[in-house]
Amino acid sequence: MFSLVSQVRKSQYYDSAVLMQLQKFLSKLEGVLDVGVLMGTDANKVVLIQSGLHTPDIDIVSAEDLIIVVKGIDDASASSALKQVDEFLLSPKQNKVGSYRPKSLDTAFRITPQSNWVFVSVNGRYAPEIVDRSLDTGKHVFLFSDNVSIDDERRLKEKALKKGLMVLGPDCGTAIINGVGFGFANRVKHGKIGIVAASGTGLQSVAVAIDNLGEGISHGIGTGGRDLKEEIGAITCFQALNFLNDDPQTELVVLLSKPPAIKVVDKLMNQLLLMSKPVIILFIGSKPPTRQLGNVYFALSLLDAAMLAVQVLHAKADESGMNKCPRISMLHHQQYVRGLFSGGTIAYEVMCILKNTLNDIYSNIPLEEKYRLKDISQSHGHTILDLGEDEFTVGKLHPMIDNDFRIRRIVTEANDPTVGIIILDVVLGFCAHSNPAGELADVIAKVINTAKTQGRVLSVIALIIGTENDIQNSKVQTDALYAAGAIVVNNAEDLVLCVSQILSPTNVDGSVLSGFAVDAESFTKTISVINVGLELFYEALISQGVPVIQVSWCPPANGNERLIKLLNRLKKDNEDAERDR
Amino acid sequence: MFSLVSQVRKSQYYDSAVLMQLQKFLSKLEGVLDVGVLMGTDANKVVLIQSGLHTPDIDIVSAEDLIIVVKGIDDASASSALKQVDEFLLSPKQNKVGSYRPKSLDTAFRITPQSNWVFVSVNGRYAPEIVDRSLDTGKHVFLFSDNVSIDDERRLKEKALKKGLMVLGPDCGTAIINGVGFGFANRVKHGKIGIVAASGTGLQSVAVAIDNLGEGISHGIGTGGRDLKEEIGAITCFQALNFLNDDPQTELVVLLSKPPAIKVVDKLMNQLLLMSKPVIILFIGSKPPTRQLGNVYFALSLLDAAMLAVQVLHAKADESGMNKCPRISMLHHQQYVRGLFSGGTIAYEVMCILKNTLNDIYSNIPLEEKYRLKDISQSHGHTILDLGEDEFTVGKLHPMIDNDFRIRRIVTEANDPTVGIIILDVVLGFCAHSNPAGELADVIAKVINTAKTQGRVLSVIALIIGTENDIQNSKVQTDALYAAGAIVVNNAEDLVLCVSQILSPTNVDGSVLSGFAVDAESFTKTISVINVGLELFYEALISQGVPVIQVSWCPPANGNERLIKLLNRLKKDNEDAERDR
Repeated sequence: MFSLVSQVRKSQYYDSAVLMQLQKFLSKLEGVLDVGVLMGTDANKVVLIQSGLHTPDIDIVSAEDLIIVVKGIDDASASSALKQVDEFLLSPKQNKVGSYRPKSLDTAFRITPQSNWVFVSVNGRYAPEIVDRSLDTGKHVFLFSDNVSIDDERRLKEKALKKGLMVLGPDCGTAIINGVGFGFANRVKHGKIGIVAASGTGLQSVAVAIDNLGEGISHGIGTGGRDLKEEIGAITCFQALNFLNDDPQTELVVLLSKPPAIKVVDKLMNQLLLMSKPVIILFIGSKPPTRQLGNVYFALSLLDAAMLAVQVLHAKADESGMNKCPRISMLHHQQYVRGLFSGGTIAYEVMCILKNTLNDIYSNIPLEEKYRLKDISQSHGHTILDLGEDEFTVGKLHPMIDNDFRIRRIVTEANDPTVGIIILDVVLGFCAHSNPAGELADVIAKVINTAKTQGRVLSVIALIIGTENDIQNSKVQTDALYAAGAIVVNNAEDLVLCVSQILSPTNVDGSVLSGFAVDAESFTKTISVINVGLELFYEALISQGVPVIQVSWCPPANGNERLIKLLNRLKKDNEDAERDR
Repeated sequence: MFSLVSQVRKSQYYDSAVLMQLQKFLSKLEGVLDVGVLMGTDANKVVLIQSGLHTPDIDIVSAEDLIIVVKGIDDASASSALKQVDEFLLSPKQNKVGSYRPKSLDTAFRITPQSNWVFVSVNGRYAPEIVDRSLDTGKHVFLFSDNVSIDDERRLKEKALKKGLMVLGPDCGTAIINGVGFGFANRVKHGKIGIVAASGTGLQSVAVAIDNLGEGISHGIGTGGRDLKEEIGAITCFQALNFLNDDPQTELVVLLSKPPAIKVVDKLMNQLLLMSKPVIILFIGSKPPTRQLGNVYFALSLLDAAMLAVQVLHAKADESGMNKCPRISMLHHQQYVRGLFSGGTIAYEVMCILKNTLNDIYSNIPLEEKYRLKDISQSHGHTILDLGEDEFTVGKLHPMIDNDFRIRRIVTEANDPTVGIIILDVVLGFCAHSNPAGELADVIAKVINTAKTQGRVLSVIALIIGTENDIQNSKVQTDALYAAGAIVVNNAEDLVLCVSQILSPTNVDGSVLSGFAVDAESFTKTISVINVGLELFYEALISQGVPVIQVSWCPPANGNERLIKLLNRLKKDNEDAERDR
């Protein structure tokens, strides 16, 4: 036998930390078997029912109400527990010991002018105003609150951007700034790896794994989960990347996010390739184009991101094996890439990697059916052909053996004034043509020169697959193609990197990154915080020896919605009257 | 000024190597500017037109006809060249010098009983019969021919399987058996890495890259491009994996293919996880579940596959950092996994990796909208919940701080008799609960015991994110959960590996791999080949010092379709008459 009693408190604001403590307090009273202290949402009602804490009050509470249910061994115990709720809520224990707590944000600003960060964890509807005022006084914001509108987020981040400040969030759970853990953060070694993360537990997982692998974190910058959406355009992410690229402590950057908006990815990839430090990317759940493109590495999981970061950090930068290709200025209308491949898999892989930087690649072996070339004898836009497919080889030898058709097609493509780059593979080995470069070099030199006489710059990139022990000798083949004016690479990644670099010559000076300059000093000088909201942030900072002041903040009208509306109306009436006067 | 002349040869069979040589021969004659020697397909007609080799004959040739076009400086030169075509085709130069060439396959079998491989590169319509007869005489087949039907492929591979033989192909361009290059292959170092590839140029690219990185190939086994389709079921691939797993030379295996059929992937993944050697997988164009699952590594490109193979080969096997979890026998109806996560990204990553071995994972943050849980208070099938989402936390603290709701839900899930595994994360650090394991261990021990008393085996796997320097101390937390009976891991990969191992205990003995036993000796003893088809294979083998005999094969009726039909009809009439008699 047992007894169930309950109590409903209508439309009242309670700090959720206080509610948890109330639940624990009541649970420990004598004769109490179980306690539910929950807001009356549908989900919470189910929890109460599944826990055997169902009283008739469940049917009358709404999502804005608090319900307290006590299950006791008898009526006396249950009722006695319920009677102690008021006492607990009014107890001075709920107003934690500690230093002086200003009641307003302005007082906090005034008495701690040295503070450089404001932590905001109040209910989302009150957060934007606090962020606004914090930015006005020149402080960075760690914005834990969720339920902030995306319009507010964009407005606040654009404002911060103009002031060289950062808004980490909204819904930002974790950051590590200069060794100090913000919000949910682990105690990890201070070190050389910077992290930018649109995911709190992602940041925690990677930081912990890096720590386990013996390396440390310079800064871990949370951006909030929506920062890489198109509406926000990754403002905080770009600020953080820029900052970490300049930060002398940071030698390598890890970027974590769910897959960003396509437009954001394009912009981001261009930026990342311009950074002077290696970058590890993990877009959780999406397919990376490859493992490495220049200084950018693609990870497949949180653990993999950490392992890859440590591996790249330990490796010398010059061991990457990636070539840089010469800068080439093409005419603006020479935008198209034409690929003439003898190896089907090589052509396919090149398309797989290229599609991350190039849109709409047509082919006879397309990645998507909509990009199937209607007429294989006529290239269209960007076109990559597998010349080894049946349709090209009826009654003919494979293009690895017989170069005749490919040579004719190189001429055709080169004569198209919209073509800027011709790419091709040269596969060496047994059974292949005994000297493919010997035949291809002539036509390559010819088409490059012809284009030149017509005022165009045509680039030819050859991907050689072969060893120096092959009868054709990869070195001899490379030299011949190089002498003819071709760029020579040995893998699809280098080929794509060359194509990307040729097609975006204007990005070279890294101009897009500038303009997001953040006041770096505030990240490295002593951190001093004003905390508005959850006390646990205050306590966590105190435990790390960080100067912090807690604002004893309460929502207007103690969170009573009707009262707030009334107050707002009065305020507006007053303002109107003021204006009319 | 120039002159164009052409000649059409109707419905006649020509070896394409001979046609290439004819084209080169004519091109070098005096006064000749360009030459086209092509079968009259539409694509080839366009090539002739684009090359300025358009004569009225183009309008009358069909795809089965040969057209020869000569562009000369004048009529005399062009016509003179054309007159030399017959002379060239009848010249004994076309019947290459060399040893004795039997005219029939049977003669070849008889005079080289030691031969263990037959190379088949005749037109696809004639290939199956030759493969059939080769298998009957106990020889492996390297089947270069394409245009072999998928029914023939399955039939021939099933036949080979029963005999412990392999059919590499059809449309197999490349293999390296015990250091000998088959077809298009590079001269690479002999070494410790085995390759299984459904792509010829893929095999070449990876072998060359491994050679460049200083390592070598034990065997490179081409399977033909369709082997991993559902119709074939990866017969050759499984044979090759089995063979390489037992092969003492091979220390690591690389598997390359376009993404296989879903059913094949499931079967394959189970097999690969049971192999005793590390396996690097590249399914070109598809998203890997993660970087490493047990002994299986996932590559992102051909270059990456080679680099990863060499890296893993160099690393000690025990450095993998992956845990093995205990073998657990569940009841058959306890098939479901329930995940109760406090970290959204962790939950999401677990789903991303799990979905490769588990179908239909429901969630409040599903990978696909169709898996969105209708009622978050009721799990359904496999369910992974992010308990940190708003819908669970209204008026409550985050589940990293407040364990109350999660504890209640663990009990609910554990009471469901269809549940075999409960997985959860325990995120440590600042602001998180000061001793989560202290609260969770009690309920975990309780639900495991309750299940036990009901005759069920319930597994609980906890993923801890934290360091020993966190206030909660990851070691203390691990010990507490372990003592309660939980399996404890530190990353999503280990968690998924444990889930997979618990859910497929019957696969432990590797039983599926057995039954594909290939006569391993024929791969390692001296290779001796019968070549039917392209002479260039013969020459390439000779150049490698391999004993080879060329069969002087001709299609029936010299490839004349009408004649073949006539002959077949006569043959059938004879057979019918024979039967009637």
